[in-house]
Amino acid sequence: MLYAPKEEIYSRIDRLKKLMEKASMDGAFFHYKIDYYYLSGTMQDALLFVPVDDEPTLFVKREITRAKRESPLERIVSIRSIKEIISHIKPMKNVGLQLDVVPYNDVIKFRDIIGNVNLINCSSLTRELRKKKSAFELTLIERASAIQKMVYEYVPEVLTEGMTEIELGGILEAYAKALGHEGLLRVRSLNYEAYTWHVLSGRTGSIVSQSDSPMGGLGLSPAFPVGASMKKIKRNEPILIDFGICYHGYQSDQTRMFAIGSMPNPFTDAYEACREIHYKVLEKIIEGLTSRELFEFSKKLAEKLGYGDYYLGYKPHKVRFLAHGIGLELSEFPFIAANHDYPIEEGTVLAIEPKMVFPKQGACGIENTVHISNGKYRILTDTDERIIIV
Amino acid sequence: MLYAPKEEIYSRIDRLKKLMEKASMDGAFFHYKIDYYYLSGTMQDALLFVPVDDEPTLFVKREITRAKRESPLERIVSIRSIKEIISHIKPMKNVGLQLDVVPYNDVIKFRDIIGNVNLINCSSLTRELRKKKSAFELTLIERASAIQKMVYEYVPEVLTEGMTEIELGGILEAYAKALGHEGLLRVRSLNYEAYTWHVLSGRTGSIVSQSDSPMGGLGLSPAFPVGASMKKIKRNEPILIDFGICYHGYQSDQTRMFAIGSMPNPFTDAYEACREIHYKVLEKIIEGLTSRELFEFSKKLAEKLGYGDYYLGYKPHKVRFLAHGIGLELSEFPFIAANHDYPIEEGTVLAIEPKMVFPKQGACGIENTVHISNGKYRILTDTDERIIIV
Repeated sequence: MLYAPKEEIYSRIDRLKKLMEKASMDGAFFHYKIDYYYLSGTMQDALLFVPVDDEPTLFVKREITRAKRESPLERIVSIRSIKEIISHIKPMKNVGLQLDVVPYNDVIKFRDIIGNVNLINCSSLTRELRKKKSAFELTLIERASAIQKMVYEYVPEVLTEGMTEIELGGILEAYAKALGHEGLLRVRSLNYEAYTWHVLSGRTGSIVSQSDSPMGGLGLSPAFPVGASMKKIKRNEPILIDFGICYHGYQSDQTRMFAIGSMPNPFTDAYEACREIHYKVLEKIIEGLTSRELFEFSKKLAEKLGYGDYYLGYKPHKVRFLAHGIGLELSEFPFIAANHDYPIEEGTVLAIEPKMVFPKQGACGIENTVHISNGKYRILTDTDERIIIV
Repeated sequence: MLYAPKEEIYSRIDRLKKLMEKASMDGAFFHYKIDYYYLSGTMQDALLFVPVDDEPTLFVKREITRAKRESPLERIVSIRSIKEIISHIKPMKNVGLQLDVVPYNDVIKFRDIIGNVNLINCSSLTRELRKKKSAFELTLIERASAIQKMVYEYVPEVLTEGMTEIELGGILEAYAKALGHEGLLRVRSLNYEAYTWHVLSGRTGSIVSQSDSPMGGLGLSPAFPVGASMKKIKRNEPILIDFGICYHGYQSDQTRMFAIGSMPNPFTDAYEACREIHYKVLEKIIEGLTSRELFEFSKKLAEKLGYGDYYLGYKPHKVRFLAHGIGLELSEFPFIAANHDYPIEEGTVLAIEPKMVFPKQGACGIENTVHISNGKYRILTDTDERIIIV
């Protein structure tokens, strides 16, 4: 198991403190495990407190031995009840709390403990910090991408006519897990779960669902209405596999197209259009277009190529993003989206996924996880991009 | 796919309204998908509003065609923005909101929309309702248990010396998915995720982690510090498989013990002690002991049998529950726990899991999902309870 090095963790804390100072925060509490993991190196049941002018304290409910092994922080304290933290903190005025994810009742109870302070959402700070990946983080994403490549290369060995979508998804997941895939993807949402088994064949690729994605899939039931289903995979239909991998908490996202026998049109041509959009947008990222400009550029290009009605879904189900940052969460900054307006900075990792959906017919598309740095882009998910015919 | 029948959904709504009346709520909003699924039959991206004296309205953001197919509710309305709900609701004084799960910022924004009302947590009402399972719900849990039985019976076919815990977990999950298992278990928590692949062998059974469970497991990394690991499974060590199954959103939980070659002591004897505790507690449920009394009874029995130091974990990591209700969530009412004091009512389904953990050696235990009704208990997870030697 790899643990985050001490310099790595303290450099994150230092950068956080600078942002806290800018936001006039005297201290900030991190209740949500994704963020305190980023800042401490452990995901044991804990609460992280970072004062702007002092050493952070990790309060651990369970299990402190592992927390101490995993986290290089100097102050790690065992608590039985959250109330015990009060003896470890100084009076403060402006206090950061993760108001975007911590439930209302928990915030109210916590405010009763820390007293009458001015609460500010501190999640925006960690989300900002997490945008740029360090060399250590990049290594873990690269490892996730490497597992992913092996999974995609395994598809032709197991894909057969008549197996169900979920059967194929399960087999791929089992294969990935044996290689170190952690099985769950993580998203910052009360209601949205990230399924790792997006295996859609033929018409199920055109089925929309609750998720903010051009394709939803049929899923297995009204209680799991997304992703792979009990539909049997047939010959000569498009098979879209969008399969996220998580290694040591870091995710990589990828989509490739498969078919048994042959891939029919419009999918073959549309897939090439997706590839063209994908690579032209990457060039425009390097040229410095902003998120919104990139999104608009991709939309116009899709229209020019004759796919305006199908690009990123059909009306009224079109989605308004082309790419999402990726790391500890499946969807993090930066985005390439209609309503985001910033340049795509150096050091970010994003999953770019142009897709076309044809009503009642199916979907096709490509997705790669890409690192932007030194005025270049680098594809981390470097699996063969040709349509694989089995 | 099975959809919840209209009578089922409206009977739940009627029972909810009675509880709302008691709690003096004029109306209640359900943002969390587990609860609005229970009350509407759909998990599309939506918000459910139930006025105490009128027909409920389901506001659907995405995707209304599926929501209408899945939900028998009469009023299903498409919205693009949450602000649009205001034209559908009457002025109210006391309003239910799911304050235990909805993030603080979302509650504040929502209050800005609905105006100056008195907010009350309405999750307690659905959690109370969901305690008793209907015949329809029981059918789905039984189906989950049936899949589970097939998975446990599949273990001897695939378990071999030298495979890793996660490899075995992945194979079992793939097998379960092909049968309809939905892959994720659901818990009502910001930080706690339910892993479905609790495969622990030998010493990893004694490793504690962040989760409130007697055994944690090593997991795959500091970012996934629970459950199966890369440890290779060896001969003559206890292999504990605690593998939840989810079918149409309904879960079943089960634990059985396996070994390659032979099961060493103390595990063989301790397993029999677990079975004795399991069945004696079930008898005491029928006799009418309260949750706390049942917990105390089990603790004393474990001590009498000579397992006081190992029962439900070793000090200081002992857990304070023996059983949890199960249904749409892995952990719901009722519990058999040290600090819960109510009788276990008729109509509930619970997972009872006496386990023994021996420091640095491993764990053993049994778990069954049980239905309590007509003054009897019925084991739904009726897999052979003998230790399986491969």
